[in-house]
Amino acid sequence: MPLRIAILGAGRIGQVHARAVASVPGAELVAMAEPFTEVAEQMRAQYGCDIREIEEIAASSDIDAVIICTPTDTHADLIEKFTEAGKAVFCEKPIDLDLERVRNCLAKVEAAGGDLMVGFNRRFDPDFMALKAAIDEGKIGDVEMITLTSRDPAPPPNDYIARSGGIFRDMTIHDFDVARWLLGEEVTSVYAAASVLTDPEIGNLGDFDSVNVILTTASGKQCTINNARRASYGYDQRIEVHGSTGSVTAHNQHEANIEIADRFGYHRPPLLNFFMSRYVAAYANEIAAFVQALAEGTAMPTTGRDGLKALELAETALKSVQTGKAMQPGE
Amino acid sequence: MPLRIAILGAGRIGQVHARAVASVPGAELVAMAEPFTEVAEQMRAQYGCDIREIEEIAASSDIDAVIICTPTDTHADLIEKFTEAGKAVFCEKPIDLDLERVRNCLAKVEAAGGDLMVGFNRRFDPDFMALKAAIDEGKIGDVEMITLTSRDPAPPPNDYIARSGGIFRDMTIHDFDVARWLLGEEVTSVYAAASVLTDPEIGNLGDFDSVNVILTTASGKQCTINNARRASYGYDQRIEVHGSTGSVTAHNQHEANIEIADRFGYHRPPLLNFFMSRYVAAYANEIAAFVQALAEGTAMPTTGRDGLKALELAETALKSVQTGKAMQPGE
Amino acid sequence: MPLRIAILGAGRIGQVHARAVASVPGAELVAMAEPFTEVAEQMRAQYGCDIREIEEIAASSDIDAVIICTPTDTHADLIEKFTEAGKAVFCEKPIDLDLERVRNCLAKVEAAGGDLMVGFNRRFDPDFMALKAAIDEGKIGDVEMITLTSRDPAPPPNDYIARSGGIFRDMTIHDFDVARWLLGEEVTSVYAAASVLTDPEIGNLGDFDSVNVILTTASGKQCTINNARRASYGYDQRIEVHGSTGSVTAHNQHEANIEIADRFGYHRPPLLNFFMSRYVAAYANEIAAFVQALAEGTAMPTTGRDGLKALELAETALKSVQTGKAMQPGE
Amino acid sequence: MPLRIAILGAGRIGQVHARAVASVPGAELVAMAEPFTEVAEQMRAQYGCDIREIEEIAASSDIDAVIICTPTDTHADLIEKFTEAGKAVFCEKPIDLDLERVRNCLAKVEAAGGDLMVGFNRRFDPDFMALKAAIDEGKIGDVEMITLTSRDPAPPPNDYIARSGGIFRDMTIHDFDVARWLLGEEVTSVYAAASVLTDPEIGNLGDFDSVNVILTTASGKQCTINNARRASYGYDQRIEVHGSTGSVTAHNQHEANIEIADRFGYHRPPLLNFFMSRYVAAYANEIAAFVQALAEGTAMPTTGRDGLKALELAETALKSVQTGKAMQPGE
Repeated sequence: MPLRIAILGAGRIGQVHARAVASVPGAELVAMAEPFTEVAEQMRAQYGCDIREIEEIAASSDIDAVIICTPTDTHADLIEKFTEAGKAVFCEKPIDLDLERVRNCLAKVEAAGGDLMVGFNRRFDPDFMALKAAIDEGKIGDVEMITLTSRDPAPPPNDYIARSGGIFRDMTIHDFDVARWLLGEEVTSVYAAASVLTDPEIGNLGDFDSVNVILTTASGKQCTINNARRASYGYDQRIEVHGSTGSVTAHNQHEANIEIADRFGYHRPPLLNFFMSRYVAAYANEIAAFVQALAEGTAMPTTGRDGLKALELAETALKSVQTGKAMQPGE
Repeated sequence: MPLRIAILGAGRIGQVHARAVASVPGAELVAMAEPFTEVAEQMRAQYGCDIREIEEIAASSDIDAVIICTPTDTHADLIEKFTEAGKAVFCEKPIDLDLERVRNCLAKVEAAGGDLMVGFNRRFDPDFMALKAAIDEGKIGDVEMITLTSRDPAPPPNDYIARSGGIFRDMTIHDFDVARWLLGEEVTSVYAAASVLTDPEIGNLGDFDSVNVILTTASGKQCTINNARRASYGYDQRIEVHGSTGSVTAHNQHEANIEIADRFGYHRPPLLNFFMSRYVAAYANEIAAFVQALAEGTAMPTTGRDGLKALELAETALKSVQTGKAMQPGE
Repeated sequence: MPLRIAILGAGRIGQVHARAVASVPGAELVAMAEPFTEVAEQMRAQYGCDIREIEEIAASSDIDAVIICTPTDTHADLIEKFTEAGKAVFCEKPIDLDLERVRNCLAKVEAAGGDLMVGFNRRFDPDFMALKAAIDEGKIGDVEMITLTSRDPAPPPNDYIARSGGIFRDMTIHDFDVARWLLGEEVTSVYAAASVLTDPEIGNLGDFDSVNVILTTASGKQCTINNARRASYGYDQRIEVHGSTGSVTAHNQHEANIEIADRFGYHRPPLLNFFMSRYVAAYANEIAAFVQALAEGTAMPTTGRDGLKALELAETALKSVQTGKAMQPGE
Repeated sequence: MPLRIAILGAGRIGQVHARAVASVPGAELVAMAEPFTEVAEQMRAQYGCDIREIEEIAASSDIDAVIICTPTDTHADLIEKFTEAGKAVFCEKPIDLDLERVRNCLAKVEAAGGDLMVGFNRRFDPDFMALKAAIDEGKIGDVEMITLTSRDPAPPPNDYIARSGGIFRDMTIHDFDVARWLLGEEVTSVYAAASVLTDPEIGNLGDFDSVNVILTTASGKQCTINNARRASYGYDQRIEVHGSTGSVTAHNQHEANIEIADRFGYHRPPLLNFFMSRYVAAYANEIAAFVQALAEGTAMPTTGRDGLKALELAETALKSVQTGKAMQPGE
C-alpha cells in the first residue's frame, strides 16, 4: 500500500512537495491543508487530493504522514501535534528559530518514538549525491578542505527577510548541513564575516547579504562557505571537496547545455534561476527517501538532530560576527 | 477535457510513451494494447489504465488518440485503421521501410483528413530546442554548415539489426530529420561512406556500423552526419551549426555534473547511456506538443511528410554507398 | 656546434620561422635572404643575422641548412638548388602546385641523397602531439573515425586566393596531412563537397570557401574534414578521433582562460585569431625537430613524400567535386 | 640602448629570471653572480653573460639594474647596497621576514630616490591580467567578494619550510598581494584558520600546510584565500571575483588541452605542475614591465610598499591563528 500523505500549507514550498509526492511511486497525496481557498482549489484540481483542515488531518485515519510547509513559527507545534497523532512527519527546515524550542520539540518526538525527517533537499540532489559517492568510494582520499558556494539570483522580499531569522538561519543553514554531511565530523569552531553589499535595506533590517564562513573540526578539517543574496547569472550552487589524493567538484546547472560562439566569444546560457527548477530532482528524491525509510523501517535520512545542529551553527556564526572571534558551537 | 489516449504496444518505446503521457497535463492514458499478459498487467498496475485489444480500442468512444509503438511492419496498417476510426494518430518512426507503402498510407490519411504525427523525438529535446531557438533568433546568422554526431553506446542485438532496414533507415533517419529541421531547405545531394568496424557480424547481415554522410542543398549549405554503433563513453548526441556570424553547439549530457581531479588528471562521468534517460524530457515534450496541437487545432509538429522525407534520404544514402556517387533524393 | 641556418624569404611565414629558429637551442640564424630592403634591415636588427643573396647563401660554407619561405612557384627550384649545394632543406608546403613537378623534384633530392623536410606545422602542435601520443599509447583502441575541423577567422585577400591553387591545395592540405598522420593507413577514396557561402568573389575566382571531405581507407576507417574560410569566433582548429575503446579530442585555444558570468550567461573570450599566435609553439617544435633529426642523423619528421601525398589528396578532392563521385587518389 | 641587467643568484628563481630577461626585447643580461662555479659556468654558456662577484657588479658601470634572487635574509642588505650604487633594483619577495627591517629598508630606498620593484609574478600572468582588465572595464560591476585558490602540487623540502618564515609569509603572501590588487581597497580585518593535514613534519616545524583566510575591507568587501601545500592534480591557481553585476573566473591550465573519453568517463590531463611552467609568461611579462617602467620613467608596477603590505597581512594572519580572532593589520 502506498504511503498516504497530507501536505500542510500549499505555498511555494508546499507546491514543490506536492509535485514531488505525485512523482514518487509508493506515495499518494491524499490531502492538503491550505487557508487560501483559491490556492486550495487549484491544488485539488491539479492533484485530485482532498482539502482538509489541519485538525481534521491529524484525526484522519487515511493519512500516514504529513509534510509541514507552513510558516516557520508553526513548525514545532505541528511536529508535536502530528507526532502525538501517530503520523510520520516531514518538516521543512528550520524546526524553529529558537534553539531551546527545537530541543524541546525533539525531546517530545523522541519520547513519543515518532518519525521525523527535516528537509535538507541538497543532500538529495543527484550531482551532490554523486559527489558524496565519489568521496565515500575513496576517490579523493581523506576529506581535508571543503568550499561551498551558494548564491541566490536575487534577495527575497524585505518582509521575508524580516521574518527569516537572518541569513545564517535562513540561507547558510543549508550549507551548514551540507558541511556536516561532507566533513563527516562535527564542527568545533565557526568564524563568520558578514557585510551588506547588495541592498542597504537588508542592513536596515539588521541582516546581511554577503557572508563568508570558516568551519573547522577537531582534526583540523576546514570548510569555507560563501553566500551572497545576489548573483546576476542565476542560482549559483557549487561544492568543491579537496582531499588527500584528489578533489571533487559539483558544477552548476545551466538553463540549457548549449554554447554560442560569435565575434565576442563563447557564450553559455545563465544558470537555472530558481530553487524549484534547480532542485526539482532533489525534492523528488528527498520525498522518495522519506517514503522508503518509512516503508523499510530504517532511520530517517535527515533527522531532527541534523536540523538542530545546522541551526546551532547558524547561531554560532551570528555570534562570531558580533564578537569578531571564532566561536565554538554552544559557546 | 484531457485528450484520452491509448498506446498500442507496451515494449520499450511504448513504456517510454506511457511515462510521457502520465507526465503531460492535458493527456490521460486510458488504455494500452499489449499481447504479453505479464507486461500488460504491469502497465495496468503502474498507470491505472485499461488493457484492451487493438480492435476494441479502434471502436472505443472514450479514446481520442493512439500512439503506435508496435513493430514497424504494422505501422502503416494501424495508421490507416485508426485514421478511419477517427482517431488522431502518433506513430513512431518509420511509417514503413518501403517508400511506396509510406506514400500510399500518407495519401489515405490526407484523403481522410486525419491527424498524423510521426515521432522524431530529437526535435523536442530541450537543448536541441534551445539550439534551434538560437538559430531562429539570428544568433549565428545564416546557417552554412551543420555537423551531427550520433553514436550509440553499443550495437543492438543482431536480430534487431536484421529487421531494422539497415543503419540509414534505423539510426541515421533521426539525423536526416534533424538535418532537414535545421537546414531549413530540402537536401538535393547525398553522399555516404559506410564501413563495418565494430562487429563483423553486422557486415554479415548486409549492414554497416560506421557511416559518414554529406548532405548538400541547392544553395550550397552542407551537413555532415557521423554515426557509429559503438561509443565506449555513452550515448553521444551532439549538434554543431556553423553560420555566417557564429556557431552554436549542443553538448552531450553526462551521468552527473561532477568532476574528479587526481594525479592522473581531471575526470567527468560517462555520458547518459541510453536513449530513455538521455531523451526523457524530449519524449515528454513530444507528447505534450501532440496534445497541444490537437487541443488548439494547429498543424502537427512533425508530419507524415517529415517521416517520408527522412526515409527518402536514408534510401538515397544507401544508393550512394552502392554507387560511390553523390545521389539526388528520388534519383 | 649549432646548426647554421639561412632563411629564404622574410615574409609573414619567414618571420615566424626566424622567431622559431631564435628560440631553438642548437640552431643559429646566420643569414636571411629578402629582396625588400626595409624588411631585411628589420630582420638584421632583430636577429643579428646577415642579409645575403640566395646565390650567396648557396655558396656559403657557414650555412648548413636553409628554410624556404619564398613564393610557392619557386619552391621546387630552390629545393633542387640547395640540395645540389649540399644543404639540408626545410621547405614550406606545398613543394609545387603541380604534382608532376613535385615528383620530379623529389626524385632529384632522393638521387642526391639530400635531406628535405616539408613544413606541416600541425604535427608539432603540443595539443595535437598529446592527442597522437594518447592514440599511440592505446588509450582509444583502434582508430576508426576522425573528424577534423579547420576554419579560418576570415578569408585571405582575393589575390592570394587567385594564386593559392584553390582551397584544397592551400588550406585543406594541412588536414590531409593530419588525416594521413592519424589514420596510420593510406587513403583509398576521397569525396568532397564544396560551396561558395562566405564570399561570392571567391566563387568568381573559381574557388570555394566551404568544403566537407570524406576520406576512407582500405580497412574502412573514415575521416571527415570540415573547412570554412570564415569563423567569426576565431581560428577554429579541432581534432576528434573515435576509436574502438574511446575517443580523444583536441580542443580550441582561447585568447585567455577566463570566463565572465552576467545576466546574459557565461562568456569566454574568442579563439586565438591567427595562425602565428595559435601555432607559435608548433612552429618552434617543428624547427627543433628538423634540427634534432639532422643532429642525430635520423629520418626527417615530415618528408617530401608527405608533401606529395597531401597534394595528391587535394587534387583528388578537386576531381571529386568536379565529378560528384568518390575518387581514388591517382585516379 | 637596452637596459643592462645583472642577476644576483642563479638558483631556481634566478634561472627563471635569466630566461625571462633573455626573452624581453629592451633588456640585456650582462652578468650574473653565483657562488657555485658549476651553475655559474652553465649560465655563462647558456646566456653568454659574465660571471661577476656581487661587489664587482655594484661597482660596474655597465650595469643599470639588478634582479635579486639570493636567499631572503640577504634581500634587504642587497637592496640598500645597490640602491646606494645607483642601480634600479628588482627584488624577489619578500624583502625580509621582519617587518621592521622591511620598513627601514624602504625608508632608505625612498630617501635615496631609488627604483625598487618587488616580484609578485601573478599580477603579470596573462589570464589574471585579462581578469583584472574585465573588472576594470566594468564587466562585473563593483567588486564584492573574491575567492583565491592556490594549492601547490607538493610541499617543499622541510629545510625550505624551516627557513621560509611560515606558510603565510612564504605562500599566502602571493594571495595577499593578489587580494590587494583586486580589492582596490586596503584590508582592515584578517581572520585565518590553519591546520596540519598533509604532513605532520610540517607541524613539528611550527608551520601549517592547509589554511583558509578571510580578509575584509572598510566598505565590507570580502576575500577568501584557500591554500594547501599538496594537490595531487597539479599546481592549482584560480581566481574568482564576484561583483554586483557579474562574476569573472580565471581557470586553471592543464598540461594539454585534450580530452579522452572511454568507458570510465571523460579525462583531461593534470594541471601544469610547476610554477616555472605555469607562470612562464608571467615572469617574462614581469621583467618586461620592470624594463618598460624604467625606460619610460613611470612608477614601478609593484612597489616596496606592496611587498610591505603583503607581509603585514601575513603577519596579521599568523596572529589571528594564534588568537582565534579577526585582527587588524598593524594591531
